Amino acid sequence: MRRLQDPAARRRSGNTLLEGPNLIDAALNAGVVLESICVAVGGEDGPALGSVPPERVVRVTPSVLRAVAATESPRGPVAVIEIPPSEALVASDTVVLWDVADPGNSGTLIRTAAAFGWNVAVSGGVDPWNPKVLRAGAGGHFVTRLSQLGEDPLTELRDAGLSPVALVASGGSPLDGTLSAPVADDRRPTPMALLVGNEAHGLPVGIAAACDAAWSLPMRTGVESLNASVAGGIAMWALRHRR
Amino acid sequence: MRRLQDPAARRRSGNTLLEGPNLIDAALNAGVVLESICVAVGGEDGPALGSVPPERVVRVTPSVLRAVAATESPRGPVAVIEIPPSEALVASDTVVLWDVADPGNSGTLIRTAAAFGWNVAVSGGVDPWNPKVLRAGAGGHFVTRLSQLGEDPLTELRDAGLSPVALVASGGSPLDGTLSAPVADDRRPTPMALLVGNEAHGLPVGIAAACDAAWSLPMRTGVESLNASVAGGIAMWALRHRR
Repeated sequence: MRRLQDPAARRRSGNTLLEGPNLIDAALNAGVVLESICVAVGGEDGPALGSVPPERVVRVTPSVLRAVAATESPRGPVAVIEIPPSEALVASDTVVLWDVADPGNSGTLIRTAAAFGWNVAVSGGVDPWNPKVLRAGAGGHFVTRLSQLGEDPLTELRDAGLSPVALVASGGSPLDGTLSAPVADDRRPTPMALLVGNEAHGLPVGIAAACDAAWSLPMRTGVESLNASVAGGIAMWALRHRR
Repeated sequence: MRRLQDPAARRRSGNTLLEGPNLIDAALNAGVVLESICVAVGGEDGPALGSVPPERVVRVTPSVLRAVAATESPRGPVAVIEIPPSEALVASDTVVLWDVADPGNSGTLIRTAAAFGWNVAVSGGVDPWNPKVLRAGAGGHFVTRLSQLGEDPLTELRDAGLSPVALVASGGSPLDGTLSAPVADDRRPTPMALLVGNEAHGLPVGIAAACDAAWSLPMRTGVESLNASVAGGIAMWALRHRR
């Protein structure tokens, strides 16, 4: 279980870790099957455990639980699940995590996408099945469609019927309450792929230029940028009325 | 300097730490005076250092810099600044961090407030001058007005002419593009104090009930809540047109 903190071990085994009772509950509610679950002897089981077959429950000392978990003071169980296969892209609004590196930001974007009904695609950056990303995702991984993109992400997105739009810190059209979005022949808006870039570097210039549009959130002078997960969250909220 | 990671030492000395070249640059651009700055011998000085009197620059080994900083692999300098006094509340839209506990969320809310022109007030939770909060704030601390509230925060807010509004995960009026805000006699909207609660527990029920209104962000069924800094960020964005 401890090895699953490591990306190579996750790829080899096809498994990852869920830490904490809330996240495990969210997974069970979404119908995820636990391979096994580690519970501290004498600790609270929480509501989650009731539905887990007893042969999958491993009782360990608190120090073993601490060794298994990535969080410094894990409260409650740690579970192993199989990583679901990457889902095919579909023609429905999708937020694209483009080289998003911070596990907190990646998980928060997935959580927000789930809340507002966006699909998620990932191109580079932190592994979305990293246990820290899962924690910040707060169950969003199990509610939204999650696709991992390959070598030529923009082509993949276009082939799925998505219009790529870049979210940039400055220089884009102001993203506003009255949004003009790309519109198809039948006057229904074309579903979009909203690209959110890396925390330090944003989107690569060439990628932003190859998108159908670039949008920015107008900010007060003297402020350079927003946190990536806040900017992406505001954009997903602001664009929710298109659908 | 290392002691300044500790809240009691910050209170005693009235100082705090800025870690990293970007944050130090943002502070210098906003006219903040550095008491001293610790730079790794042989490391890059960055643009910030040019404007600092040489007697305030301390050159140390990388291992000393690591000992001083809270971040595990500090890149670039660490500076000491005086903590500015708490500012008086004014009758202008203010986001209230109510028992927000996570340094990342607190800093991100301050960063977003600065970007959209909100003032910030803090009631309980993590110290806004904690070095980790400053890092996540990305300079927002030096661009926005920051007030620390006392024993009776709601009265303080009302006395300053602010209408307290609770942001709650569910059960509030839907916060929407077409917002009906409290309106004063002269038809200009009353400035509001937007209360954002603790990550795990939200706002205390009694506090939310004592506010003039409670608003929620409509979410898809099956999703319980948003990250506190994303929810607060969306609300600050959605409400920016009132002003």
